[in-house]
Amino acid sequence: MSLLSVGTVAYDQIETPFGNSGKVVGGAATYISLSASFFVDQSNIVSVIGDDFSKDFLTKMEAKGINLDGLQIKQGEKSFFWEGKYHYDMNTRDTLVTDLNVLADFDPILPRDYHDCGFLMLGNLSPDVQMRVIEQLETRPKLVVLDTMNFWMDIALEKLHEVISKVDVLTINDEEARQLSGEYSLVAASRKILKMGPRFLIIKKGEHGALLFHEDKMFFAPALPLEVVKDPTGAGDTFAGGFVGYLTKTRDVSFENMKRAIIVGAAMASFTCEEFGVERLLTLNKDEINKRIHKFVELVRFQI
Amino acid sequence: MSLLSVGTVAYDQIETPFGNSGKVVGGAATYISLSASFFVDQSNIVSVIGDDFSKDFLTKMEAKGINLDGLQIKQGEKSFFWEGKYHYDMNTRDTLVTDLNVLADFDPILPRDYHDCGFLMLGNLSPDVQMRVIEQLETRPKLVVLDTMNFWMDIALEKLHEVISKVDVLTINDEEARQLSGEYSLVAASRKILKMGPRFLIIKKGEHGALLFHEDKMFFAPALPLEVVKDPTGAGDTFAGGFVGYLTKTRDVSFENMKRAIIVGAAMASFTCEEFGVERLLTLNKDEINKRIHKFVELVRFQI
Repeated sequence: MSLLSVGTVAYDQIETPFGNSGKVVGGAATYISLSASFFVDQSNIVSVIGDDFSKDFLTKMEAKGINLDGLQIKQGEKSFFWEGKYHYDMNTRDTLVTDLNVLADFDPILPRDYHDCGFLMLGNLSPDVQMRVIEQLETRPKLVVLDTMNFWMDIALEKLHEVISKVDVLTINDEEARQLSGEYSLVAASRKILKMGPRFLIIKKGEHGALLFHEDKMFFAPALPLEVVKDPTGAGDTFAGGFVGYLTKTRDVSFENMKRAIIVGAAMASFTCEEFGVERLLTLNKDEINKRIHKFVELVRFQI
Repeated sequence: MSLLSVGTVAYDQIETPFGNSGKVVGGAATYISLSASFFVDQSNIVSVIGDDFSKDFLTKMEAKGINLDGLQIKQGEKSFFWEGKYHYDMNTRDTLVTDLNVLADFDPILPRDYHDCGFLMLGNLSPDVQMRVIEQLETRPKLVVLDTMNFWMDIALEKLHEVISKVDVLTINDEEARQLSGEYSLVAASRKILKMGPRFLIIKKGEHGALLFHEDKMFFAPALPLEVVKDPTGAGDTFAGGFVGYLTKTRDVSFENMKRAIIVGAAMASFTCEEFGVERLLTLNKDEINKRIHKFVELVRFQI
């Protein structure tokens, strides 16, 4: 079965207490598809860039089996650009610059052979764009995973609710879960959100791990405490890419397999934090991934 | 083997977004000894109160097998009083009132039959008081566990280092681990702190769980996401009490057993958060504890 990832392909500039990245490749769909590429041989992408975007980098993506037929290149326009600065705690950040550029009037168009996809990962984008992707699908995917953020809850809540009602898995962070549900307790929040449509809810807590809720069941995956955290940008998207990549590979959307997929996603995310941008995902190999997954097994293993 | 708990027995008044406790019994040694009482039949306490403290409550402690021979009652003086207000996120709080009262000149005196104790839990107190307890012990306990806080790092760092060098297990929160080590990464922080003396370091992260470090090994125990979090006051002390109570019961201080003890501590702490003050610890039974521990097993269980 095929995986379709929708989201930004963009440039970022990131300052953390440990340095400044300069202008580097970023974007949700970039992280998602690169992370998933370790589990699926071939995946599709829908996104938009300007003609300023690195051709070299596109070649690297294609070499990882990422099909760019759905990547629109707008001549004479610039790619989406985001600049941010992390605080010392690395859990909070300020946005310094957001240049929408090509994203301002992005109309996602699915190439003919994308219309029948098994797994759909909708990266963080406006709910309007996410809905237009869903509308173009001829058959319903086996699994639709949606990522979003508080920004869309603030300015497009109604449309967002419409999208949420059509997906299987929603991934948001703890503050967003509280905002969306109006509940402080994440257990109470999950109960309300699962009534909005998704069968699965993943609450991402950054360096504090992630929670999976399904029916009355709950699973917690830790984040691996790291020796060096250089840049958490893209960690959430890398997590999503590993998660949905593993599910696409195994074709099993049971709760037990979702748990495995979350551990895989958390392992992938831990690599992204070790370097600026997507650098670590480009040098990574499967042996390192397996060793890292084993560290997660060790981290939470106990007999009682 | 016996357990000796040292810390405050006091009054608290707590405001959270979910209510105001009024004046209730609190104090580190109260939470520690009540929590430990579910695992050890008899334990000893060293603390100080004024003659304003509830005799009824002391009777309840004795009924739980807590020996109060080491509890000084200062006639004509008042018990330690703390008043605090939690912010909406329940992870941060402001101290509104701190009346040291009897604590101002507390000189811990160990009764004769306390001098030979197997397990010593030094709750959060001034490093001077903690050191005076250690000095009175005739034989070194099998295990000494130390809790402290940033306040003592700010005003009594040298003395605190002296105490830290003499203990086996140090429990602090993540910000305190960063302050004590000067390292942002908790992995790097743990390495530095383990060189200060303790063989084990527990980093408490409140609703985000706890990490155990020992040699080059690392274990993560989640906190149980709760339906209702009414008041987190005393959760850290309840955790410590469950941890050291379980170790005292099992007499096994291996890394594997420490992992079990941390899960037990986390389970105990989850109960304390459900009600104001020590209320939940007074109504709790062993069957509820076993069921809660099983929830932790389920929460992190996966096969990969």
